[in-house]
Order: sequence, then structure tokens, then C-alpha cells
Amino acid sequence: MTDRTPHVRIDVEVLDANITAMQSFCDNRGIALRPHVKTHKSLVIARRQLDAGAHGLTVATLGEAEVFAAVAREYGVSILVAYPALVDADRLRALTQRVDVIVGADSEHSFDAIAGSGAAISIEIDTGLRRSGVAVDRLDALVRAAHARDIPVEGVFSFPGHGYSAGSGAADAARDEAVASAAARDVLHAGGVTDPVLSGGCTPTAAHTDATVVTELRPGVYALMDAQQRALGVARDEDLALTVRSSVVSTAVRGSYVLDAGAKLLGLDSPAYVEGHGWIPSRPGDVVARLWEHHAVVTPVPGSPLPSVGDRIDVVPNHVCATVNLVDELHTSDGGVWPVDARGRNT
Amino acid sequence: MTDRTPHVRIDVEVLDANITAMQSFCDNRGIALRPHVKTHKSLVIARRQLDAGAHGLTVATLGEAEVFAAVAREYGVSILVAYPALVDADRLRALTQRVDVIVGADSEHSFDAIAGSGAAISIEIDTGLRRSGVAVDRLDALVRAAHARDIPVEGVFSFPGHGYSAGSGAADAARDEAVASAAARDVLHAGGVTDPVLSGGCTPTAAHTDATVVTELRPGVYALMDAQQRALGVARDEDLALTVRSSVVSTAVRGSYVLDAGAKLLGLDSPAYVEGHGWIPSRPGDVVARLWEHHAVVTPVPGSPLPSVGDRIDVVPNHVCATVNLVDELHTSDGGVWPVDARGRNT
Repeated sequence: MTDRTPHVRIDVEVLDANITAMQSFCDNRGIALRPHVKTHKSLVIARRQLDAGAHGLTVATLGEAEVFAAVAREYGVSILVAYPALVDADRLRALTQRVDVIVGADSEHSFDAIAGSGAAISIEIDTGLRRSGVAVDRLDALVRAAHARDIPVEGVFSFPGHGYSAGSGAADAARDEAVASAAARDVLHAGGVTDPVLSGGCTPTAAHTDATVVTELRPGVYALMDAQQRALGVARDEDLALTVRSSVVSTAVRGSYVLDAGAKLLGLDSPAYVEGHGWIPSRPGDVVARLWEHHAVVTPVPGSPLPSVGDRIDVVPNHVCATVNLVDELHTSDGGVWPVDARGRNT
Repeated sequence: MTDRTPHVRIDVEVLDANITAMQSFCDNRGIALRPHVKTHKSLVIARRQLDAGAHGLTVATLGEAEVFAAVAREYGVSILVAYPALVDADRLRALTQRVDVIVGADSEHSFDAIAGSGAAISIEIDTGLRRSGVAVDRLDALVRAAHARDIPVEGVFSFPGHGYSAGSGAADAARDEAVASAAARDVLHAGGVTDPVLSGGCTPTAAHTDATVVTELRPGVYALMDAQQRALGVARDEDLALTVRSSVVSTAVRGSYVLDAGAKLLGLDSPAYVEGHGWIPSRPGDVVARLWEHHAVVTPVPGSPLPSVGDRIDVVPNHVCATVNLVDELHTSDGGVWPVDARGRNT
């Protein structure tokens, strides 16, 4: 374990408990689990998810698929690029020779490149986030266009990201997704896709999934969790597997202390439902109030003793995916170092 | 030049013009320029700054200093770690054997490790940002403590980051800095530091520097510029040297289009004085309204034609330092590829 700060630490027991819990949830409901590995970008963690029973992997880019291809093939599972990816035919063909690939699409743009590659497609539908994905009433045209080029259509996928909100947001988003996915199922059946995969979900909505409709879940954050999930009530304190170990570098300005974590490790995700730029388990009322690249200025609970320069303080970042992408290594509670194998595979 | 998106592009002519302009500004006023290289993390760009006349380099971490040590030594200049760094004696000694180093400090925490290493210190003073740095009335005690351990005191440094604001913020912050630096100079003189370096500045405040007080400037962003500097009026459109080349990946949701740049390249810096998460020179009224890791959802000017899936669109990020730290390579306008040599050197 390095003693230089800031660095990222993973509690392996908590990680494994999170992996087991989500797998059990899916198994008990008859839903297939295809974890999104952009969260951790780690071959070691992907193996643990596959060992627990995951039936495939989800990635965001072809570059991530290339990194995870060997492990997916070893376990005999496919990789879904859950993104309306612009695809280069040669690159895709090289990938499909290594592993089974399903490419996301919400337009016909890349159909010519996908045709003949051996890849199937999953069509993205918008279930309420209003980001990408077609409305269900435009699904049929894409299915026909794919079939006209002999591209296998595996089904549809959606990201109910509007479930990242306080109150009943997650339940509402899961219901939106179930309604749209059921309508998509009818379109797919009519279009000759007899047993479609209806893929959805994210960590906040997972518990609300309608298992009578959705056949596959793609959460990512659940394996590590973060301060966003804690604020949403999705993660308990004991579920937080990743922390940024930082040092107090300054107490010179009265009424605050400064950590060396900064935006370069904590990231700047700052949704309205989270107070501050991360959560400090050992000083739970302190607020990470201001963030620069190398400075996190923390406002302590009024009247509480200030830490001293040199003290170590662990911070749970707001958005774990962003933090992992900012480091090359994950330091584990059992003294190991796991590389972030797919860091920076943006394309 | 890669044709995969998203990737980062640098216009070399614009870069060189920016480097020349800041160097000329400093030369004309008799101020030494010590550019902050955390902005670009690139040995190639540091060489261009040194070729233009920079008299030293600024870094944020010892890890960055290690990356830039050889080039600094080659040019016969020193490296300032402009941060209240916690220092390991062995590591610092290894560094000072390679290059002249000045370590920032705002407490005595690391004085024992610095003593005997061959490094000098610069004491951080707070000139109004209220982040780190001592108030000037506590400077004398630190100077005495350093001298008691035979640590050379080079002077003081400050970061007038409160100049990142609309209106007269930059001029006001530069004035705050000059007042505090002048007071610090008196303390340093009284403490036996006869010819102190008074180091300050950042890109927005640089033009307002009081050259009768401040002896050294440490701007970083000026070399590449970004949408924040444009919004502040510090950068003209023709000064923007770095863009994120992205592709339209979806137009499925009415009234918007989606780029593949996302927070993974654009970063999430979003000060109140900037509209949206980046600026699109070819579609200057469009707003990068919502950002996920791999999706930038853009709201076009009402009535303007939507781009098509597959179209290439360049985006100027809000904060260039964050963007550079998210990639391994910078693609240049003359067909080159420059490595981001110090990416991820967080400690």
C-alpha cells in the first residue's frame, strides 16, 4: 500500500459483498446481470463479477470492449457497447473475431459498417432521460433497416438516468422504463425478433426493476458505490467500497482545512441532491465545500477540532466512475494494486 | 492525425502566439515568467515556453517536478512546486540532485524533510482566495522557523484565484495580491531575505499585475486558453489553441444533438460566468447543456439546422487543465502527436 497521497483505495470485502448482493437480486428475479465495467475499468473486478454469475459485460466504447475482450471470451460471454457508437468496419471485425459483440445504435449511421461484421445490434430507446435513444414509435423503422442488411437485432436497451433524483425519482424512472420496454417488446415481436433482450437499469433504479418486462440489468456503480448513491439512499455507509485517501496539506486559512485530493481525484460531479464534493466517513458532518484540481477545501462542523497538517483523511467521491478514470492504479485493502486497465479508452 | 473521436487537438500556431504574447508582456514589464505546466503536462510545450524566455517552471506536485526535471536542468532553470506540499526527504533529495527545486509551504510540517535537501522554500501567502497560504502577519514566524533549520527562503507565492470572476474581479484580485505581496516583502526584508521573489498571478489577473511589486508570474492556462478565459474576456476567439474534436452520435431526441466528447474529455468545470460545458466555434450559439461521461447533449440555436450523425464538431472545453489530464495524447495541427507526459502524476 502506497503511503503517498492522494490515491484510490478499494475495500475488497465490501466490493465483493456489493457484487454478490446485486447478483443475488438479479438471480432471485430471473433477470440477467450485465454489469457496466466503465465504472471500474478493471479486469480483476470484471472477473469477480463474472465469477459471481454475470452473464455478460457492458462497455461504453469500442476501446473498452477491446480491453475486456479476452476476459469475456474466456468466460464465454458477450460484450454490449451500450452507446450509439460510430463504428469503423475494420476495427469492429477485428473485435468480433475475438469476442461476441453487440453494438448499440439509435440511427442507421453505422449499419453498413456493422453488416457482415458478425456483431448484433441493440437499439437504444429513450425511456424518459431525453438524452439519446429513439422513441418507441420509431423503433420499427430501425429494426427493418437492420434486417434489410441482415444485421441480427438482439433487442433494445435504455438508460433510465432520470432516476438519479431525490424522492420517488428512481421508482418513477424504473416504471417509465418498464412501460417503454413493454411497448418496444411488442414492436420487436411484430418485427420478427421473437425473444428480445430488454436491457435497462442503473444502480439507483435497479431495486425498482419490473422483472415481468426487463430481462437484463446493466448497473455499474453498484460494485463500488459512491457519495451520490449514498445521498440517494441506494448505498448504506457500509456499502462504500472506494475512497480517496488524502492528506491535510493546509490549515492556514481559518475555519477550513485543505486536502490534497482535489478535482484531479474527486471529480466535479455535483448534483443538487449531494452536499459538497464528496463524503468524509471519519468526519461525517464536514463539507467538502470548494474544489480545485489539487485542493479540496473542507468546512468542518462548527466547533469540531481541526485536523492537523499531515493527517490522513479518506473521502468517498461523488461519482466513482469519474474518479477511477483519473488514476492508473487502485490500491486494495489486502495490500494489492490493481491496474485501471481501460483508463482513458475514450474512443 | 487520428480520425477517431473524441480526441484533443492543439493548434500549434495559436499555442506559439499565446506563448510569445505572455512572454513579451512579462519582458516588457520586467517580470519573470514561470509558467505553470500542470496546464499542459507536456515536455514539448514546456520547451517552447523555455525557448521563448521563461525563467523557470511551476508544477503542482513532486511527481510533476520529476517529469520536468530533465528539461529544466537542460535549460538551467529551477522548478517551483507551487503547493503546500508534504515532502518525503528521500524523494526530495533525489529530485534536488537532478534539478534546482523550490518547495512551497504554508506550515512547518515538512521543514525537517526539506532541511538539508538542497531545496529552497517559497512560503504561500493568502491574498484573498481564502484557500491556502498564510496571512502576511504569520509570515515572519515561518521565515524564522525556516532559517532556524538553514532552509533558504526564496520569497513568497500566492494564487489570486478570486480573480476568476466576472466584471472587475481580475483587476481587484491583482490589486489584493500586490498589497499583500508588498507587505510580505517588508516582512521578508526584516527577516533577512534581501532580494525576495514575490510570485503571483494567474491567467485572468496577469494583465493587471502590479510590476512594481510582483517579480514573477505563474500563469498556466494562457498557453492553450479555454472557454472560461473566453467568457472572462481574457481570451479572444483566435487565442483558443485547444479543442476537443468530437462526433455527433445521436440526433434521436428532438431539439438536441449528442456529441461523444462528454465529461470524460470536456470535464465538469462549470463556473457561473460560463454558459454550458464548453464552446462550439462552428456553432457559436449552441449550448452544451448537459454532460455525462460519454454524452454531451447540445441545445442548438432555435431554428438552426441540426447536424447529422457522424458530423465532426470541435468543442473548446471550459477548463483546459482538466481536459489535458483526461487524455494520453495531444494531436497537433501539423499532424504530430505529443504525449501528455505528466498525466496523472497526482502525488
